[in-house]
Amino acid sequence: MLPLTRDAAVALDAADPLAAFRERFVIADPELIYLDGNSLGRLPKRGAERLTETVQREWGDELVRGWDHWMDEPARVGDVLARDVLGAEPGEVLVGDTTTVNLFKLVAAAAGLARRESSTRTTLVTTASNFPTDRYVTEGLGELLDLRVELLEVDMGTLAATLERELAAGLGARTAVLCLSHVDYASGELHDIAALTALARGHGIRVVWDLSHSAGAVPVRLAARAVELAVGCTYKYLNAGPGAPAYLYVRRDLQQQMRSPIWGWFSQRDQFAMSDAYNPAAGVVRFATGTPPILGLPLVEVGAQLIGQAGIDALAAKSERLTALLIELADAWLTPHGFTLATPREAAHRGGHVNLAHAQARDLCQALIEKAGVVPDFRADANGAGTIRLGPAPLYTRYVDVWDAMDRLRKLATQGAGAR
Amino acid sequence: MLPLTRDAAVALDAADPLAAFRERFVIADPELIYLDGNSLGRLPKRGAERLTETVQREWGDELVRGWDHWMDEPARVGDVLARDVLGAEPGEVLVGDTTTVNLFKLVAAAAGLARRESSTRTTLVTTASNFPTDRYVTEGLGELLDLRVELLEVDMGTLAATLERELAAGLGARTAVLCLSHVDYASGELHDIAALTALARGHGIRVVWDLSHSAGAVPVRLAARAVELAVGCTYKYLNAGPGAPAYLYVRRDLQQQMRSPIWGWFSQRDQFAMSDAYNPAAGVVRFATGTPPILGLPLVEVGAQLIGQAGIDALAAKSERLTALLIELADAWLTPHGFTLATPREAAHRGGHVNLAHAQARDLCQALIEKAGVVPDFRADANGAGTIRLGPAPLYTRYVDVWDAMDRLRKLATQGAGAR
Repeated sequence: MLPLTRDAAVALDAADPLAAFRERFVIADPELIYLDGNSLGRLPKRGAERLTETVQREWGDELVRGWDHWMDEPARVGDVLARDVLGAEPGEVLVGDTTTVNLFKLVAAAAGLARRESSTRTTLVTTASNFPTDRYVTEGLGELLDLRVELLEVDMGTLAATLERELAAGLGARTAVLCLSHVDYASGELHDIAALTALARGHGIRVVWDLSHSAGAVPVRLAARAVELAVGCTYKYLNAGPGAPAYLYVRRDLQQQMRSPIWGWFSQRDQFAMSDAYNPAAGVVRFATGTPPILGLPLVEVGAQLIGQAGIDALAAKSERLTALLIELADAWLTPHGFTLATPREAAHRGGHVNLAHAQARDLCQALIEKAGVVPDFRADANGAGTIRLGPAPLYTRYVDVWDAMDRLRKLATQGAGAR
Repeated sequence: MLPLTRDAAVALDAADPLAAFRERFVIADPELIYLDGNSLGRLPKRGAERLTETVQREWGDELVRGWDHWMDEPARVGDVLARDVLGAEPGEVLVGDTTTVNLFKLVAAAAGLARRESSTRTTLVTTASNFPTDRYVTEGLGELLDLRVELLEVDMGTLAATLERELAAGLGARTAVLCLSHVDYASGELHDIAALTALARGHGIRVVWDLSHSAGAVPVRLAARAVELAVGCTYKYLNAGPGAPAYLYVRRDLQQQMRSPIWGWFSQRDQFAMSDAYNPAAGVVRFATGTPPILGLPLVEVGAQLIGQAGIDALAAKSERLTALLIELADAWLTPHGFTLATPREAAHRGGHVNLAHAQARDLCQALIEKAGVVPDFRADANGAGTIRLGPAPLYTRYVDVWDAMDRLRKLATQGAGAR
C-alpha cells in the first residue's frame, strides 16, 4: 500500500530507474497529462531524426538504388522487434501491412493448414468481446471461405474456463483456428498466453494472438511460451506513429507449412525473375504482400529499440506500479462517486491500461480533456454508458502524472462535471 | 523529326513550360541522370516539409487527438488524387494499403458480385505478361476461392484483338473478373482503357485496372472512359516515396453492390460503436482495412497536387516528346549496336517509359550506373537477356538528360562495355 500524497508520487518518480526515458520523447506541452499511450504512443525524438534521415539521405539521395538495402528492412526490423519486444527468434517476425491485413493472412493461412490436417476443422472461433477488427476479419473469412464462425461469450476472468469447457464439449474437434487478444482492449485483462496456447494445442488447434494491447507494456515471450502465430500494431506502446506498419509472427517450424492467401510479389522466391510462376519464398517473408512501407520502418525500429534499452521486464514492473497507484487512488477517491473498476484487480491479470466504468463516463472524459488538461480514452459500452480508459505508458508517464490525473478526475466528479 | 544535337535538346528545355517544376524536387546530385522515375519518383521538397509538419505538429503535438481529422484523410487525399490525377469523382478513391492488397480486395469483391449476377462466371482472367503481383494475386484468389484462372498469352499490340476473339469464343460468358494493366510494365505499351472496358462490359465482365505504370505519366480519365474499378501505386510518377500508400478506385454506382473480402474496423459504418456487428460503411471507405498510414498521406497529397499544378495533359505532352526524342536517338545511334526498340513506336500506344532490348542489357545497365552516372532500370526477360527500361518522368527530367543518357549509352556500346 502506497501513501496517497502527491509527495509520495514525486518520490516514486525520483527513484524511478526509467525516469530518464521521458526525455527521449517530444513533450510538446509539458502541462498536458497524456494517458492514452495505449491508443497512440508519443513521438520519440530519435524516431523523428531517423525518419528525416531516411527521407533525405536514402530516398532523396539514393533514389531507386535504395532498394539494394530496403529489400531486407521488413525482416531486419522484424528481427529487432523479435529481440527487443516479442521474445521471438530471428526470422520469425515481418513488419508491414496493417494489423487487420496481417490477421487476415494468418487466420486464412492457419485455416488452410487446419483443413489439410483434418477435414472436420471448419470453424473459426473468437470471442464476442474481442477487438472489433479481430471479430470482423474472422467473420469476413468465414463468409469468404464458407467456414462456420463461433463467437464465445466470455466475461472478465472466465476465458480459460469457458474455453476449456467448450473445447471439451465439441469445439475442440471442429475448430480450425482460434483468434484471441493477449490483453483485452476493453477490460484491460491480461490472458495467460502460454496456458491458453497449450490448451488449444492439446485439441490440435492453432491460436492467432493479437498482441496490439500487450506488446511493449507486458512481457510477451513468444518463444518461451510456445506461441505459434501472432500479429500486432506498433502505434501504441511501440511509439511508431499513427498508422505505422504492423507486424506478424510465424514460428519457424510452421512457416513452410503455411501459405498466405494474398500472393504478392514481395513474397515471391526469386522476386525479380518476373516471368516465373508464383513460388513463395522460404521464411517469414512469404507472408509479405506488396512494396513495403520503407519510410515507416525506421520508426518501428526506434520504437522497438527504446523498449529494448529500457528492458521489457523493467517496463512491465513500472507499468504494474503505475496501474496499481491508479487503482488505489480510484478506490480511495472515485468509488464514492459511482466509479467501478472494470479491469482485473490482480496485477498478474492486467495489462498496461485500466478501465473505470461510470454512468457519465463520456462527459467526464470530455471534461478531463477540455477543463483538466488530461487526455484519457473513452469507450462506449453496450448499455449506452462507458468506461474511461487510462493507459500510463511506462516509458514516458510519471507517477505524478497518474496522481494529478486522478486528483483532477476526483475534482470533476465532486463538482458533478459528469452530470448533465 | 527533331535535330539530334545536344544544343537542340538544350533549346527544348529552354522552351519547356514545365521546366520550373524540376526545382520543386530535391536534386541531391545534379550530375546524376535519373531515368527511373517509373520505379521510384524523386523526393518533392514540399513533401519532405509536409511530412515533418505532420510528424511534429500533428503526431508530436496533437497526439491521439489528431484522429479527429486523420479519420477523413484517406478519402480526402483520395479526392485529391481523383481530381488531379485520375479524372474520377469525389468519393470514388481511397488511399491506403499496398497495390497488391488493394488488387486482392477489388478482384475478390468483383468476383463476388459477378457470381451473384451469374453462377457461370467462375473464371478470373489476366494476361501471362501482366505485372507479377497482378498475376499472383489473381492466381492466389483462384486457389483461395476455388475459381478457375486463365492467363492470356498476348504479344505487344495484340491485346484488343486477342481479347475480342477469346471473349467471343466462350471466355465472355465464363469470366467473373478481368485484371489488366493500363501501361504494361515490361513493354511500356499503353492500352486503350475505354475501348477494352467497353469490350469487357459488352460481355458483362468487370475489369480491374492497374494504373501503377500510367497514372501521372498519361491521362487516365476514369470517369470519361467509364472505368469501373482500378488500383495503383503512388511511388512512381506520383513521387510519394518508397512503399508509399497505394489507392483504389470504385465507381460510385458499384460501391454499394460490392463487399471487401477483408472486413476491417476502418470499413465499419459506425466504427466506434465497437460492439456492433460488421456493417460496411457507405461509400468507398467500405474498402478500407486497418488503421490508415497517416504519415504517408501528406506525401501522396503533395505528389497528386504537383501533377495537378503541372496539368496531366501538359505532362503527357512532355512525356511524349521526351520518349520520342529517346526513340529517335536510339534509332540513330543504338540500332547499329544491336539494340531493338521493345516499346510501341506510335506515341498513342506507349506510356512514360521506353524499353530497349539488348543481348548484354544487364551489363550495359551496370555500366551506365557505375561508369556513366545514369540510373536506368533493368528487367530480365524469359530468354536470359533483358531490356534497359528508361523512364524520363516529365516533372523533373530534362530533354538534355535524355540526350546525355543516350549519348553515354552509345559510347558504352561502341566501347563494347556490354560485352563480357
